[in-house]
Amino acid sequence: RIKASGLKLQLCTNETQATRENFVKKLRAMGFDISVAEVTAPAPAACRLLKERGLRPHLLVHDDLVPEFAEVDKTNPNCVVLGDAAENFTYANLNEAFRLLIGMEKPVLISLGKGRYYKETDGLKLDVGAYMKALEYACDVQAEVVGKPAKRFFESALAELGVPAEQAIMIGDDIVNDVGGAQQCGMRALQVRTGKYR
Amino acid sequence: RIKASGLKLQLCTNETQATRENFVKKLRAMGFDISVAEVTAPAPAACRLLKERGLRPHLLVHDDLVPEFAEVDKTNPNCVVLGDAAENFTYANLNEAFRLLIGMEKPVLISLGKGRYYKETDGLKLDVGAYMKALEYACDVQAEVVGKPAKRFFESALAELGVPAEQAIMIGDDIVNDVGGAQQCGMRALQVRTGKYR
Repeated sequence: RIKASGLKLQLCTNETQATRENFVKKLRAMGFDISVAEVTAPAPAACRLLKERGLRPHLLVHDDLVPEFAEVDKTNPNCVVLGDAAENFTYANLNEAFRLLIGMEKPVLISLGKGRYYKETDGLKLDVGAYMKALEYACDVQAEVVGKPAKRFFESALAELGVPAEQAIMIGDDIVNDVGGAQQCGMRALQVRTGKYR
Repeated sequence: RIKASGLKLQLCTNETQATRENFVKKLRAMGFDISVAEVTAPAPAACRLLKERGLRPHLLVHDDLVPEFAEVDKTNPNCVVLGDAAENFTYANLNEAFRLLIGMEKPVLISLGKGRYYKETDGLKLDVGAYMKALEYACDVQAEVVGKPAKRFFESALAELGVPAEQAIMIGDDIVNDVGGAQQCGMRALQVRTGKYR
């Protein structure tokens, strides 16, 4: 309906359990007319950041997200990229990421979001933010968050749209990640009472 | 040697991967003349606290520590007790502890120490403090720490000795947990350059 009205649309998601391709496939199956180019997601934003800064990541992410980092040099890592790794959040994998970080002269931890938890059909799950806090504390570092509500993330969505902040409106159900993040960036925002709203 | 000089001795440990019995057995095998009554450890301190406040814990601890909680009612839990669970820090166990906490009207999280990490023969490991931070963040609560450097913990060691703080001296290798904790409690403290000192 938004598209039919002639308005430009960019979908800002913190989804890090799937590539944009699979995310879009799911949405299309639900009847939404959306393309990969219309999706702004943390993984590609992280890839840009890694390239800009010459960083080679060790990935602690969901298996289904790994293809987003196909082009990135991952040999001899000098940073850790943390996503919602779900079943990959094992004791061994967490210790491995920790050891790499603590072994760096200046540990660099990049987190694809900082959510506390989310709901799945079988109940609530700890989100990436909780594991980010664990590594931050153990290594005495502060993670760089890519994804909502980071200002930079909204700016890249605006760049994709080719629209200044004042002419854009963010619509979302999360008061901090969606509404707060967009406002910090000069956009107006609208909170909908769906999804996680309560 | 301390004992031969006629001084009283109490061993304050944050060990939470073994019962006091097994901890003492290990020390005796190394040639130290020490008894269970001479050990102040987080698990029994937590048991006292649970009893005082009528709390029934869900345990996320090391298998070898569970016997310390044998006398405690663990049905229908109204708090979570977190220790260095090591291999028990699985994704499933962390989600389970989280769900219990977030389901409580006022989540109560008791942590047996707040160490960042420690060294084992096969490398560095995340300590209980890191997992404590993850649950604190996810549930927006502050954990109550039992063990060093908590003031209460040193006070119970002093009570065991029957000695006022001014007449006691704490000897340890950790500037925060050992020296800082003891000083906060009015004791003098001496840092030795062994163990984790660097």
